[in-house]
Amino acid sequence: MSKLVQQQDLEFLLNTVFSAEALTQYERYADYDQEAFTSVLDTARRIAETHFLPHNAKADAHEPQFDGEHVTTIPEVKTAWQHYAESGLLSARHGYADGGMQLPALISMACNAYFMAANPATAAYPFLTSAAANVIHAFAAEAQKHAFLEPMFSGRFAGTMALTEPDVGSSLGDLTTKATPHDDGSYRLKGQKMYISGGDQDITENIVHLVLARIEGAPAGVKGISMFIVPKFLVDEQGQCTERNDVKLAGLLHKMGYRGTTSTVLSFGEQGACVGYLVGEAGHGLSYMFKMMNEARVGVGLGAAMIGYRGYLESLAYAKDRPQGRRATNRDPATKPVAIIEHADVRRMLLQQKAYVEGSLALCLLAARLVDEHEAGGNAESGILLDLLTPVVKSYPSFYGPRANDLAIQVLGGAGYIREYPVEQCYRDNRLNPIHEGTHGIQGLDLLGRKLWQHEGKGLKLLLERIQVTLNAATKHSELRETVALYQSALKPFMTTTVELGQSLLSGKAEETLANASVYLDIMGKYVVGWLWLEMASKALEQDDLAAEFVQGKLQAARYFMRWELPEAELHLKRLQAGDDTFLATKPEWL
Amino acid sequence: MSKLVQQQDLEFLLNTVFSAEALTQYERYADYDQEAFTSVLDTARRIAETHFLPHNAKADAHEPQFDGEHVTTIPEVKTAWQHYAESGLLSARHGYADGGMQLPALISMACNAYFMAANPATAAYPFLTSAAANVIHAFAAEAQKHAFLEPMFSGRFAGTMALTEPDVGSSLGDLTTKATPHDDGSYRLKGQKMYISGGDQDITENIVHLVLARIEGAPAGVKGISMFIVPKFLVDEQGQCTERNDVKLAGLLHKMGYRGTTSTVLSFGEQGACVGYLVGEAGHGLSYMFKMMNEARVGVGLGAAMIGYRGYLESLAYAKDRPQGRRATNRDPATKPVAIIEHADVRRMLLQQKAYVEGSLALCLLAARLVDEHEAGGNAESGILLDLLTPVVKSYPSFYGPRANDLAIQVLGGAGYIREYPVEQCYRDNRLNPIHEGTHGIQGLDLLGRKLWQHEGKGLKLLLERIQVTLNAATKHSELRETVALYQSALKPFMTTTVELGQSLLSGKAEETLANASVYLDIMGKYVVGWLWLEMASKALEQDDLAAEFVQGKLQAARYFMRWELPEAELHLKRLQAGDDTFLATKPEWL
Repeated sequence: MSKLVQQQDLEFLLNTVFSAEALTQYERYADYDQEAFTSVLDTARRIAETHFLPHNAKADAHEPQFDGEHVTTIPEVKTAWQHYAESGLLSARHGYADGGMQLPALISMACNAYFMAANPATAAYPFLTSAAANVIHAFAAEAQKHAFLEPMFSGRFAGTMALTEPDVGSSLGDLTTKATPHDDGSYRLKGQKMYISGGDQDITENIVHLVLARIEGAPAGVKGISMFIVPKFLVDEQGQCTERNDVKLAGLLHKMGYRGTTSTVLSFGEQGACVGYLVGEAGHGLSYMFKMMNEARVGVGLGAAMIGYRGYLESLAYAKDRPQGRRATNRDPATKPVAIIEHADVRRMLLQQKAYVEGSLALCLLAARLVDEHEAGGNAESGILLDLLTPVVKSYPSFYGPRANDLAIQVLGGAGYIREYPVEQCYRDNRLNPIHEGTHGIQGLDLLGRKLWQHEGKGLKLLLERIQVTLNAATKHSELRETVALYQSALKPFMTTTVELGQSLLSGKAEETLANASVYLDIMGKYVVGWLWLEMASKALEQDDLAAEFVQGKLQAARYFMRWELPEAELHLKRLQAGDDTFLATKPEWL
Repeated sequence: MSKLVQQQDLEFLLNTVFSAEALTQYERYADYDQEAFTSVLDTARRIAETHFLPHNAKADAHEPQFDGEHVTTIPEVKTAWQHYAESGLLSARHGYADGGMQLPALISMACNAYFMAANPATAAYPFLTSAAANVIHAFAAEAQKHAFLEPMFSGRFAGTMALTEPDVGSSLGDLTTKATPHDDGSYRLKGQKMYISGGDQDITENIVHLVLARIEGAPAGVKGISMFIVPKFLVDEQGQCTERNDVKLAGLLHKMGYRGTTSTVLSFGEQGACVGYLVGEAGHGLSYMFKMMNEARVGVGLGAAMIGYRGYLESLAYAKDRPQGRRATNRDPATKPVAIIEHADVRRMLLQQKAYVEGSLALCLLAARLVDEHEAGGNAESGILLDLLTPVVKSYPSFYGPRANDLAIQVLGGAGYIREYPVEQCYRDNRLNPIHEGTHGIQGLDLLGRKLWQHEGKGLKLLLERIQVTLNAATKHSELRETVALYQSALKPFMTTTVELGQSLLSGKAEETLANASVYLDIMGKYVVGWLWLEMASKALEQDDLAAEFVQGKLQAARYFMRWELPEAELHLKRLQAGDDTFLATKPEWL
């Protein structure tokens, strides 16, 4: 059995729940068929298992070193990068004309799942590079693409996104890095960026930083922000690296997990000679970055889901293998101990994990399916729904993936707490996910303050329509009677309260309403993932060729979700409906 | 302000909530007064701040090394140990006749709180030694006490508890370490123990292991377990260390946190020459160990509470200091950013932490107060209540302390995730607490399967009586009207369901009932800590000399607890009352 994902589950999600093959009806994907998808997925899995998984713990134990001049990573990272680059996955989503594979987002997401489960820290380098390349592809001038995009696709150059500054954090509108126009049409940048993942390394020939900065005289706030390409080495017209640009690694940060990925403080223009190239139009930097950011947010969700999934599989294997204790009804010490999975409390911890991680993976694949429907299928509604769901896709796995890893540790007990077993690293790695690419708090504000009300609330309407389709199908299965009923009865307060929160915002009560935005984010996550559990259970029942245990597992996880998870969302809804002001009313001096 | 605990809070708990001074009415504590307590506490705090806190991060970054022969810890650990030993705290709770200080458990617990907040890994050495010494004091023969107790009290020898074996884990009844009688009245031990904290180190001259083993021919299960003193070095009649005993460090385990404490695999009797001395009577080993274990469990609760508390204070200071973003109603980027504590969502994360950690500390101090009432005051009922509450005192802080640390990381954002700031270490350290000295699952079984029904359920009756006293007092305060009402209305289902669970057990449905024991443990924790919040809020209102902000903080945390925490317990109760069998019914092959 693969250590990365339950193969049967992934196939079920791709083929049955999200109908991968139907994507081949889109012209862009017309060259693909089921077999071709499988072939790409097999390649990804092989590379993940062969070149990413084996050094996951080693890269954690031997984090990148900085001697004041150069960064050194363990050599396995570079080898993994090379295999990844050679596979063509760095540009897999792009068109044939750009040297890409025109791979559907859904299949690409599933490929990424293998890498995230195998080694999220090493996977960060190619994933960040793909994301940066996508921005350049979408917004940069032809000459810029020529200079930077091809070498990023081929793996010669890596990419980063350089937003955060030491004094600014999540409040991007306040960033202060300056860009001064230069005679040759380029700019000179000056400022400092922090927490830049992959900001320096010894893996690639060059690094292409996408830097947000403010051109001299630009207005305050987000409207004054522009995007610049700032390469580590300048590049000549033949695409060769020449002199070192004035970007300096000020230092490495030492993370709790994700240690294999360098986290850097970068100084731009200490010598006054940091060359940057404006991307697209001045003042549009943040909107360009959000193209990348939204993809990155879904990517964070996937990482969280898969680190959670990995922990689930490890703890499941341990629980089936480890004998300890006896059933509550057997007090005879002369009998043999049972495997710990025989204890209901251990099954609780496994079932909870299953509900979190399989639900999270389904959520991320849904997001990818929506990308395909929108971009390749031209379905604008799918794009609107994706916009609405992006904060949830980022946050739900980021919150419950670490919870799953917490339970995985507990299943292993003492073994779970030591580095001799892999689950403690999952726990540490996964803790980054509720922070980077926009914290939970930021996602909550984005969802409740903005996304819900865009397009006149159409996203929510589309979501509810899809939920209704699932309910209609699920109602036909007697095995799902209780599960459907629980979800259905919980749906009404969700809709009512959401509408009321919208009215409250309209009436100018921004502060009161948004005070509980993080709580609303959690509610929404539970409803969306609850819906997906209903969908999975329903589809599993309709599929003839699935193993009975697999179907029962999906049913039981769906039952668990409605009995144990959804009621917490209902409880939260009651608080929000009652206008709970506990946090808003708390004065700083009371703490 | 102290980084270890809010001084005003600790004083409030000791003096107002738990009436420390009233303890001086007991003969054993008659020499003390308020000033003397303060003096002891000041000494503990000074040592914790001066000799424990400064190397907390260093001991984490430079964990103990084993070269195959010797273990090396950083020298600061030994210095800290010496200062602790010189202070007399190792025997502080013991009588004058034994060289102790006859310090009340309540004050001793408060002293320990400083050390746990400052450096839980280094504090483990003296705490384990005290616990082991207590067992020897209670059950060992005079000659054994003479040989081992005095040097443990003075800090020459350290102590450990060696229960767990590699193949046995939590199921102590299955342990296989063997003890063979020897002509001279001693025994020869043979077996392996795992996860033994402090099992080897370079801090003390000698280490006294309390080892559970099975004398040849002993019955299977717990009744066949005896306790042995197994010193690292044998000791002559003058109390001097002589030859090395046949206890070998097989290896160190590498923990996620608590790295400063060695976690060891120990081999006893590889050469067939491991000398052990039977403590007390054969076959009583587990009950002796439980004397130590119950203290250790309360100690684990305290550690979890204080690591949580430390994280709370760090994140609170950060939130007050760090400017970022603006209020939801202010969209003008030209205005200055506010401190992040001005954001309601940050206050949410701080208030939750406050509720968890101050509640947890109160819980641990309550346990200590009960020890004093029982042991020095001769109040048997306090002993019964302590017995009932011990699994809760161990588990509630162990579950919610790490949750608090999770929130502390989130308050700091990116800074929370890097080792350049202290909260990620708190998160790692605290994750041990739901595991060691009996996992959550074990505590749940202990509570629901045993403790509730001992003494014909008297413990619960005593708890409810105390709760009623608090409710009667709290009802008088109009500020607490809502808080009291919420708690009071939640109390009835708690009682009803608990009785029903008892009946279910009596009717032979052990497996069905105990399947949700961990959930019941969480419920009980919320009711007990909810009660303590009511008590704290009520007492704060009655006290004239407290700062208004302090009182408001207690009130608000109590409100938060009843509005946000207690309803989750009520939800769980509904499931238990309905006989939810989700986990029991889940078949291993479905996972």
